Amino acid sequence: MGERTEHTPLERTLQLVGDRWSILIIRAALRGVRRFDDFAADLGIARPILTKRLTRLVEGGVMAKDPYQEHPPRYEYRLTPAGVALSPALVALIRWGEHHLADGDSPIVLVHGPCGTELEQGFWCRTCATTFGPTAIRAQSATTQPEHDSAQRDRTGP
Amino acid sequence: MGERTEHTPLERTLQLVGDRWSILIIRAALRGVRRFDDFAADLGIARPILTKRLTRLVEGGVMAKDPYQEHPPRYEYRLTPAGVALSPALVALIRWGEHHLADGDSPIVLVHGPCGTELEQGFWCRTCATTFGPTAIRAQSATTQPEHDSAQRDRTGP
Repeated sequence: MGERTEHTPLERTLQLVGDRWSILIIRAALRGVRRFDDFAADLGIARPILTKRLTRLVEGGVMAKDPYQEHPPRYEYRLTPAGVALSPALVALIRWGEHHLADGDSPIVLVHGPCGTELEQGFWCRTCATTFGPTAIRAQSATTQPEHDSAQRDRTGP
Repeated sequence: MGERTEHTPLERTLQLVGDRWSILIIRAALRGVRRFDDFAADLGIARPILTKRLTRLVEGGVMAKDPYQEHPPRYEYRLTPAGVALSPALVALIRWGEHHLADGDSPIVLVHGPCGTELEQGFWCRTCATTFGPTAIRAQSATTQPEHDSAQRDRTGP
């Protein structure tokens, strides 16, 4: 099942962070939450689930685990640079929810901190110096090798 | 469990699309896949799971279901405007996987179709005419009402 997709980086990404607790843990870490007990309190997540998710995120290179107390041993978890690099995906999910699933009870918006303007999240082309939408996105091999037909099909994107 | 987060739009977003099959279905739809059998073949997903996910996406307003054949009844599924609006989140997840989880076997990049330049996905402030990173993001109420403390805490973001 999923022979093709299981082997794509997207599938591996979703196996690593494609569940709501993992994404909520990463969001809390972006807010500055570091310690196991703080994650548990901030998210209201069952501790066994939190342990499993944090372990997977550490093994996947999204978070790093460092001791902050020896007796008894206690650890803090921080996002690696790869983990911080997930922020555009989180922000996109948060903004979509605010715009499409907000219950109207004092909705929030994500803004540019210094000026308070609601942020825009676009696709930008440095060469054309233009923003563009999803229909202008093409997927291509990063190598110079000619692509196979199957690869070509996989690489019609986003 | 999750008393606080279950009520945020992000939590509702993740309950709707926060699983890898739903995201892969949406990606396939962005590629132009429309019919049940085509989703099943494209994703290699078990048909009962595909049925459940498509139903949830339709009920959630992400996809719309239209008949294309009456005898026997057959339907096609297309993304609503809200569904298409999920593309920044998908692109962010795809790009992260390509950059951080690629197995090195002919990796792909997402590019600006017309010129082939790898796309950049940034946060943009129209007022300041500048791009910025996640640390410059602030969450604030979209209303003019003063925020409650608990709301304030929820709204320290991203």
